Amino acid sequence: MINGKRESKEMESPNQEKPSLFNSMFKAKYDKITTDVSHISQITKELAQDDPRRVVHSIKVAFAITVVSLFYYFDPLYEGFGVGAMWAVLTVVVVFEFSVGATLGKGVNRVLATILGGMLAVGAHRLSSLPGKKLEPFCLGVCVFITAGVTTFLRFFPKMKARFDYGVLIFILTFSLICVSGYRDDEVIDMAHKRITTILIGSSTSVIVCVVICPVWAGTDLHKLVATNLLTLALFFQEFGVEYFKTSSDEIANDNNEALLDGLKNVLDSKNNLDSLLNLAKWEPRHGRFKGSHPWTQYQKIGELARHCACRAEALHGFIYPHLQIPKEVKSKFRETRCKMSSESGIALKELSLAMKKMTKPSKAKPHLINAKQAAQNLNLLLKSNIWKNLNLSEVTSVATVATLLVDIVTCIQEIADAVEELASLAKFKDFKDVKVAPQIEKAKLGNQGSIKRAFLC
Amino acid sequence: MINGKRESKEMESPNQEKPSLFNSMFKAKYDKITTDVSHISQITKELAQDDPRRVVHSIKVAFAITVVSLFYYFDPLYEGFGVGAMWAVLTVVVVFEFSVGATLGKGVNRVLATILGGMLAVGAHRLSSLPGKKLEPFCLGVCVFITAGVTTFLRFFPKMKARFDYGVLIFILTFSLICVSGYRDDEVIDMAHKRITTILIGSSTSVIVCVVICPVWAGTDLHKLVATNLLTLALFFQEFGVEYFKTSSDEIANDNNEALLDGLKNVLDSKNNLDSLLNLAKWEPRHGRFKGSHPWTQYQKIGELARHCACRAEALHGFIYPHLQIPKEVKSKFRETRCKMSSESGIALKELSLAMKKMTKPSKAKPHLINAKQAAQNLNLLLKSNIWKNLNLSEVTSVATVATLLVDIVTCIQEIADAVEELASLAKFKDFKDVKVAPQIEKAKLGNQGSIKRAFLC
Repeated sequence: MINGKRESKEMESPNQEKPSLFNSMFKAKYDKITTDVSHISQITKELAQDDPRRVVHSIKVAFAITVVSLFYYFDPLYEGFGVGAMWAVLTVVVVFEFSVGATLGKGVNRVLATILGGMLAVGAHRLSSLPGKKLEPFCLGVCVFITAGVTTFLRFFPKMKARFDYGVLIFILTFSLICVSGYRDDEVIDMAHKRITTILIGSSTSVIVCVVICPVWAGTDLHKLVATNLLTLALFFQEFGVEYFKTSSDEIANDNNEALLDGLKNVLDSKNNLDSLLNLAKWEPRHGRFKGSHPWTQYQKIGELARHCACRAEALHGFIYPHLQIPKEVKSKFRETRCKMSSESGIALKELSLAMKKMTKPSKAKPHLINAKQAAQNLNLLLKSNIWKNLNLSEVTSVATVATLLVDIVTCIQEIADAVEELASLAKFKDFKDVKVAPQIEKAKLGNQGSIKRAFLC
Repeated sequence: MINGKRESKEMESPNQEKPSLFNSMFKAKYDKITTDVSHISQITKELAQDDPRRVVHSIKVAFAITVVSLFYYFDPLYEGFGVGAMWAVLTVVVVFEFSVGATLGKGVNRVLATILGGMLAVGAHRLSSLPGKKLEPFCLGVCVFITAGVTTFLRFFPKMKARFDYGVLIFILTFSLICVSGYRDDEVIDMAHKRITTILIGSSTSVIVCVVICPVWAGTDLHKLVATNLLTLALFFQEFGVEYFKTSSDEIANDNNEALLDGLKNVLDSKNNLDSLLNLAKWEPRHGRFKGSHPWTQYQKIGELARHCACRAEALHGFIYPHLQIPKEVKSKFRETRCKMSSESGIALKELSLAMKKMTKPSKAKPHLINAKQAAQNLNLLLKSNIWKNLNLSEVTSVATVATLLVDIVTCIQEIADAVEELASLAKFKDFKDVKVAPQIEKAKLGNQGSIKRAFLC
């Protein structure tokens, strides 16, 4: 019995170790999985909260695919198209995009390119069969080679790339598929007809679902993006007026500073987003307050000027918290003029942004722009005055640089104002009546809300 | 007879008018067509000369499609796959991209997503058939709806979007197609197997043709783009030294001015191109002098610093041709220091660019950077000296601004140098031996060749 107990103890010890090793490994794995899952769910939550349209879009895509797959499930619908019905499902998956412009653009491209490719392929098939059955594969091969080569090169043309890149791809696809499979299937026309019909069904389902259920308009997004960029610049200039004379040890400064720089970076990096939204907006029909003939290209001009202005603002940002060695008197005089110039520039930009958002004429921006110009003239007078005489040039260099850059920026904002004015006249914006400014700005979630209130201090 | 003649004359006059109207319309049409054709051929020529790889790419795509279509033309190959062989053609058309990275990325995405989507679809098909034939379409519909919705939302995840966007799309596609068509075709596994095999054939054909015939590496393009951006900045600073003291009436000035600004704009707008090349480069295996573990993300850092520097340079550009009212003596002293600072910065950047191009350590840039810093110190001393005492601040404002911006730029170039140094150590670049500088730069076609020679004047 004693021996038996010993044995059982000996047996137990490795057994006890094994589960503990296994347990710790299992626990480590389990912990890693729970961390990963919580991380993913966190990102998911952020993505959904950041833009709830993403959730709606996912449901819309799932709905459209399910609707099209009805062709397979129900016999009467299936009878008509057979296996070809899968092209409808494929079309929905590939064509359905986030915005109406993108979906419409892809849909139109796909349908037109399929019709053109199908027709040409039928022609090529007929021509290739003329020299006889033996030479047919050779002729078809040559046709496919030349067409694929030429159309692939077409994709490098800037205008084609911007609007018809997907169409050219689908043209090559349809042409090759019908040409090649036509060699087997003598009913080429029937095949082309079925393919075009199913693609039409898929494309129109996508477009209808995209437009009817909570549509996302690329044009509206473009309009908002440009207006937001102007507001970001406005916040920067208003904030700059306050921050410039602070020391870097101030509490809020650093957070605010980063938020300002991030905002400028967003404006500077918005080119690609803006250009692609512009291309998509051109596909969209009349919607909301945007007419069919809305001057979309004008947004590109305003966007470019805003980036130009952001570049100057980034250069200006290097002079927040300078170690000014100038006397208090000089400082306060300079502060007043510079602060006015910066804040008036900011308000002018904010008014331009608001006018764009409300689609009214930017008449309220003008007086602030005039004030900013007046402040610039005052600054010039101040620079010409004698108060600087007893100072070293190196001591007032940063003051002079900020002043010069601000004068340059006022010119830049004048150009932006002109471009917004041009947009207002081209798009026939209404006259400004009575728009409450403050609540509108507070509603604009730029992740920089505290700074707006502080900006008004200036 | 007379009457007859009269009649014939009356008949002639409208007849004579008609052909002339017809002729003029025909001529106008003909002229328009010839103008269009010559315009298109001009663009084609430019596109081909600008980057001859575009022509090679078009031929490669045509060749790959023709090779894959052999499956249809030859009976033994056709027997194996039947109509499913068209998936191979479709895969080549969709997967074949300009660079190896893009083709490989799309190919791998397509194959993996097809396998995963196919396997899950077979599972879903089996599960759905459990509750009975009547409930099967309903279960399949729910499966497709949930999978399509969840995976569409996955496409919004930044990391997924960057590398696996196409894969997620293909996953939804395969899953939906096999789930849906599986309801008709009981041999789901056979169908999935055929689809995966044909897609593997299409993808591997694309990758092989893309890699074997004149491959275009995204990594090499990324490396060249970043080096070219540094060279563009170098040219700007060297040119700025010369142009700053010219008057705007100088002959060459305007052309040069525009070329300089265009160069800066290219650097500022390169973010998107750089980011997408980075994503593609990560897919590429070892090639040329780039190892598999090449530190590609470092290029993003250098690119961002270069854009930051270009921003400062654009602000600086506003001060070319200032109306300087300062005495000649002061001007010449200032000119010497500023010119040295600008040109040494330019040479330092050029050396950094060359070191990157040659993949050597950027040891030759260091002395020029030290010189630039020394010049910055001298400039500070000059600003502290008495020569400015008798001048108005407004008269020397632009001088002070240029000086401050240049000091800021020297700091920025130091950061670029550090980043290039880091890249050189991470990628184990060789030590610099003997690289001829001048011919290398003259070979770099930036459309700004004249300016390089002028830059050496400074």
